[in-house]
Amino acid sequence: MIKVGIVGATGYVGEELVRILMQHPQSKIINLTSQSYVGKSYNEIYQNFEEICAHICEEDIEKLSKEADVIFLALPHGIASKKVNASILTNTKIIDLGADFRLKNVGVYEQWYHSKHFSPELLEEAVYGLCEIKREQIKKSNLIANPGCYTTCSILSLYPLLKENLIDEESIVVDAKSGVSGAGRALSLGTHYIECTESIKAYKIASHRHTPEIEQELGEAYQKEIKISFTPHLVPMNRGILATCYGKLKKQISWEDVMNIYKKYYEKEQFIRLMRKDVYPETRWVKGSNYCDIGFSLDERTGRIIVIGAIDNLVKGAAGQAVQNMNILFGLEENTGLNQIPMFP
Amino acid sequence: MIKVGIVGATGYVGEELVRILMQHPQSKIINLTSQSYVGKSYNEIYQNFEEICAHICEEDIEKLSKEADVIFLALPHGIASKKVNASILTNTKIIDLGADFRLKNVGVYEQWYHSKHFSPELLEEAVYGLCEIKREQIKKSNLIANPGCYTTCSILSLYPLLKENLIDEESIVVDAKSGVSGAGRALSLGTHYIECTESIKAYKIASHRHTPEIEQELGEAYQKEIKISFTPHLVPMNRGILATCYGKLKKQISWEDVMNIYKKYYEKEQFIRLMRKDVYPETRWVKGSNYCDIGFSLDERTGRIIVIGAIDNLVKGAAGQAVQNMNILFGLEENTGLNQIPMFP
Amino acid sequence: MIKVGIVGATGYVGEELVRILMQHPQSKIINLTSQSYVGKSYNEIYQNFEEICAHICEEDIEKLSKEADVIFLALPHGIASKKVNASILTNTKIIDLGADFRLKNVGVYEQWYHSKHFSPELLEEAVYGLCEIKREQIKKSNLIANPGCYTTCSILSLYPLLKENLIDEESIVVDAKSGVSGAGRALSLGTHYIECTESIKAYKIASHRHTPEIEQELGEAYQKEIKISFTPHLVPMNRGILATCYGKLKKQISWEDVMNIYKKYYEKEQFIRLMRKDVYPETRWVKGSNYCDIGFSLDERTGRIIVIGAIDNLVKGAAGQAVQNMNILFGLEENTGLNQIPMFP
Amino acid sequence: MIKVGIVGATGYVGEELVRILMQHPQSKIINLTSQSYVGKSYNEIYQNFEEICAHICEEDIEKLSKEADVIFLALPHGIASKKVNASILTNTKIIDLGADFRLKNVGVYEQWYHSKHFSPELLEEAVYGLCEIKREQIKKSNLIANPGCYTTCSILSLYPLLKENLIDEESIVVDAKSGVSGAGRALSLGTHYIECTESIKAYKIASHRHTPEIEQELGEAYQKEIKISFTPHLVPMNRGILATCYGKLKKQISWEDVMNIYKKYYEKEQFIRLMRKDVYPETRWVKGSNYCDIGFSLDERTGRIIVIGAIDNLVKGAAGQAVQNMNILFGLEENTGLNQIPMFP
Repeated sequence: MIKVGIVGATGYVGEELVRILMQHPQSKIINLTSQSYVGKSYNEIYQNFEEICAHICEEDIEKLSKEADVIFLALPHGIASKKVNASILTNTKIIDLGADFRLKNVGVYEQWYHSKHFSPELLEEAVYGLCEIKREQIKKSNLIANPGCYTTCSILSLYPLLKENLIDEESIVVDAKSGVSGAGRALSLGTHYIECTESIKAYKIASHRHTPEIEQELGEAYQKEIKISFTPHLVPMNRGILATCYGKLKKQISWEDVMNIYKKYYEKEQFIRLMRKDVYPETRWVKGSNYCDIGFSLDERTGRIIVIGAIDNLVKGAAGQAVQNMNILFGLEENTGLNQIPMFP
Repeated sequence: MIKVGIVGATGYVGEELVRILMQHPQSKIINLTSQSYVGKSYNEIYQNFEEICAHICEEDIEKLSKEADVIFLALPHGIASKKVNASILTNTKIIDLGADFRLKNVGVYEQWYHSKHFSPELLEEAVYGLCEIKREQIKKSNLIANPGCYTTCSILSLYPLLKENLIDEESIVVDAKSGVSGAGRALSLGTHYIECTESIKAYKIASHRHTPEIEQELGEAYQKEIKISFTPHLVPMNRGILATCYGKLKKQISWEDVMNIYKKYYEKEQFIRLMRKDVYPETRWVKGSNYCDIGFSLDERTGRIIVIGAIDNLVKGAAGQAVQNMNILFGLEENTGLNQIPMFP
Repeated sequence: MIKVGIVGATGYVGEELVRILMQHPQSKIINLTSQSYVGKSYNEIYQNFEEICAHICEEDIEKLSKEADVIFLALPHGIASKKVNASILTNTKIIDLGADFRLKNVGVYEQWYHSKHFSPELLEEAVYGLCEIKREQIKKSNLIANPGCYTTCSILSLYPLLKENLIDEESIVVDAKSGVSGAGRALSLGTHYIECTESIKAYKIASHRHTPEIEQELGEAYQKEIKISFTPHLVPMNRGILATCYGKLKKQISWEDVMNIYKKYYEKEQFIRLMRKDVYPETRWVKGSNYCDIGFSLDERTGRIIVIGAIDNLVKGAAGQAVQNMNILFGLEENTGLNQIPMFP
Repeated sequence: MIKVGIVGATGYVGEELVRILMQHPQSKIINLTSQSYVGKSYNEIYQNFEEICAHICEEDIEKLSKEADVIFLALPHGIASKKVNASILTNTKIIDLGADFRLKNVGVYEQWYHSKHFSPELLEEAVYGLCEIKREQIKKSNLIANPGCYTTCSILSLYPLLKENLIDEESIVVDAKSGVSGAGRALSLGTHYIECTESIKAYKIASHRHTPEIEQELGEAYQKEIKISFTPHLVPMNRGILATCYGKLKKQISWEDVMNIYKKYYEKEQFIRLMRKDVYPETRWVKGSNYCDIGFSLDERTGRIIVIGAIDNLVKGAAGQAVQNMNILFGLEENTGLNQIPMFP
């Protein structure tokens, strides 16, 4: 059994981690920490865990690193880069669900996050944990930077097109839509029920922090720097991200040929489902699962390809992918503990 | 492996059955039937099953009975009582998720359902499949009448009080609230998005068909006929039933003593969770699980007890309890395949 | 033009007051105050008022009382009873949308609100502003205690039955359901989007503060003290209250005779709509309007009457009724500025 | 008083027309027709009209044309072009809320709508009723083609940029999001509550019929043919459209200069509200009103402008704009009967 610790276990991502890991046949949670609920029993914080998990939330991450085989960090940005250091990484593996180790370039990090990075020396060791693309590097690392929710969906949707040089890198628009759980459990006016139900809005236009992450990874695939327009929207629903991605095709190509390119990269991936022609992803079909559904359309009139990707932001966009990373790190079957059929309705 | 057939697999209850049974370690679905989608692949009907289930829907129930160890019927009332007969029951076990075999009294059935019963001779064999209460009878039967969603929640909430003669039988009011999935997948104006979102209504006031079912079972516990007021309401949410139950206490009693009575009946039940004092069930905490959460309050001012019960209508109120019944019928651990932690959010 | 001041203009009730009063042909808002947003422009706080209302929020209520013909107080309980005093009432009329002047008995207030009342000497002057029932007293008073949302709906639904001695006073159960706007704009975990969408819960069971208010008014109608069971529920929708009320009939009576009794009290009321037989209120049909819809069913099996009432909690349950009170106070047609047709969808 | 007839009064757009016109000081509804509800009273079909409108739905449009000063047609496409003819237009004015008279080019109509056009000879007379842009032509016409909901929002958002030649016409992407009421009251699986709540999807990708409408009007402004990528999405909410529009700027320009261009076209428009810097439209802020809110951001990194527009699809996107057209046709103040403050929440 893999001994697991979760730091920041009482946010929505933390709670999803607890849910998945308690149903994982090869892992055992040895510790849960929380800043907000120290001393509280987990089932008091999340009543769905009544009679299932009564762990008392602790605070100490140091102690944890000596006992746990792997620690998941589900913390606001800027905290992980303070807590993690080389000595901790000799004791344990770290899967960080925050943003601190995702961007390779410290300058880019500090520009988008408006804050100092506290352990730039670890950035080289850190691997960007987008499993389908970085599997081999992940296996060898002790520090995994689990991708953001928007980024996972956007990169997986566009990756084959850029890898195969199919679209014009100056034409890329990603118009993304997210359920409210992506905003976390901390109270704010924008996520007060009345303020976000029965409405849709764009936010952080041309300034959302997942933008450089997408650009970094797609640029690596394209082998050239890329700048995209990324616009996130808030949708009145619990879970789910839909990314509608636009790009100008560099040449005319048939739907079937594009599909073959997607298959080249994803056919063997058990968590990526490619949609048949004229079928498109909807967030409801991936809810509660680790799937990323991808479908696309070719618009001859405008010469664009429109790719739609859908994930559950808390699973493939956070906790599920983190567990997928754990499975890779420990040599387990990649889908261990991640076989939930999407729950509809 | 238990060979399972599902008749009526393309309604919401049918789909939940498929989801649960495909994740059940001891069952194998050998056949899915559907009236509406004959010849269609299951993942075309429910896109969440993409790459998971591509069964082609068939129509023939006769053939099924010879091959299946157990058949789940998820059909509108009036159909099962036509399809099931003694000869089928010698071939296979039937778990009927419809209403046809729930009421022991044919007259009561015909009065509330305004339709003839086509196999009254089977009513004696049929066992009302409320697992926590009828476990021993279930084991011996080949025909299980799986309880309704409202009824499961209402009966489990009130059962100990009536069994122990604690409340006045003329004082019982059950005010119940359901998510929209309870109304099924058939189109109707009342379940058109715009017509039921952002609103709440009562419906079938003093005339809902789950009323006699509740009265039958509570009356049996009380050993005296009981008439209750039951009012269902439609709530703009996907899943969940909340039953708010009122009864006048026959004598003064402390919260702890009432809790002890509930524990007497439910403490060992793995799917019933009794809430601590001042904690009450909410439907979100049982979503996707087979739990029935129960909490109560004593109102000294009025001499009433208010009991709140919550279930997921598609799981403990339908497919989950049906699988629980299957587990009992086949001598498995009762929670086999039913250990999902409630999914929140 | 009636010169109007609003104290607490930036809560949801305050905002609804601004919306209604700006469209009222005989009123002019001269001042808006807010504790949270002093110095801010109203359209920055509520962007729907862009180009409509750019009042800067002020803080001073004293000054206000000298200029305004009427002041609406939309404040948490315990504040109005500190702010209002006899001298203010000589300058202006007060319509208090909070709880401080609703209960005639200071002891009852202090018992349910767990806090001291700061101006018990004003309670005699205060009139309970349920317009349809207290119209004549309202006309003569300078201090109107605008009823609570649950109470308005519950009292209007049951009033004729108690006034006419039709139901057993020990049998009354009011099971009420409210949209989330009733909980106000102050942040709390319970009204965080993720925590209340896709779920229903009961809360403040046997202890909600609207209980004594309902009992006071129904007791006055019945001319005898009454104790009821009142259970509020939170429903995932913006606006609306539905009250499902149960009572044992003292004698057999026909639907038509009960309707005649309701008509006796309400036929001329323009804001009460009595439903035809077999038609029941739903909150969506009153949204944005000052209507209270009432329908009922007689259950012969149990000897109960079930009355359903529906209002928009922010209009008839708060701001709309407050304006109706203003109209009465100033001798206007009672529906002035309140003729909005309910907005559906 | 303007005598008004409404053909197709029982869809959501029809109902919104009734709601607005009954509160319009200069109009009188003389007739409502409906195919689905002939002989029914309006308040039985829409219970919000209880005690407000009891018109019996009729069927005959011919008769109507002789009595009404103006007829609103709220019909599925393909029907209006059959019903309207030159003789009717000599008797009355027609405001068609359907698609039949919007596209000037019959070939384009037949290509996108896959059906024959039955009165191409009227297309020249028909004026595209986007009030802010076609005001002068509207005044002189008897046949107004009221714009579609997506189109109104998209065109108003982009019009000044194209008129002033600011963006590259090959770079335009409109990613639009709509509430469910846009899909109408006819039952379909896609608008069944369970199937569209808690999810978001794109639909009719690269093939939605509002595309050529947007291209026609923007092309006219740009004085050159334009092809855009338009992708509609379904959002789980009642009302509202948000259009997120992307275009590559032809030259560097400051936010203030772009704002001045928008002001040049819209400053005097009472139904267009331009947002301050860093403020963006959200659909909740226009609900129930005839406003179109517009905000924009300049993304220096990519050289794009992102314009966000928001309307209430049933008001500015349908019934409200139709009444605005009526006001223009009859020489009334353009905002007569359209002054509702947006209702939030």
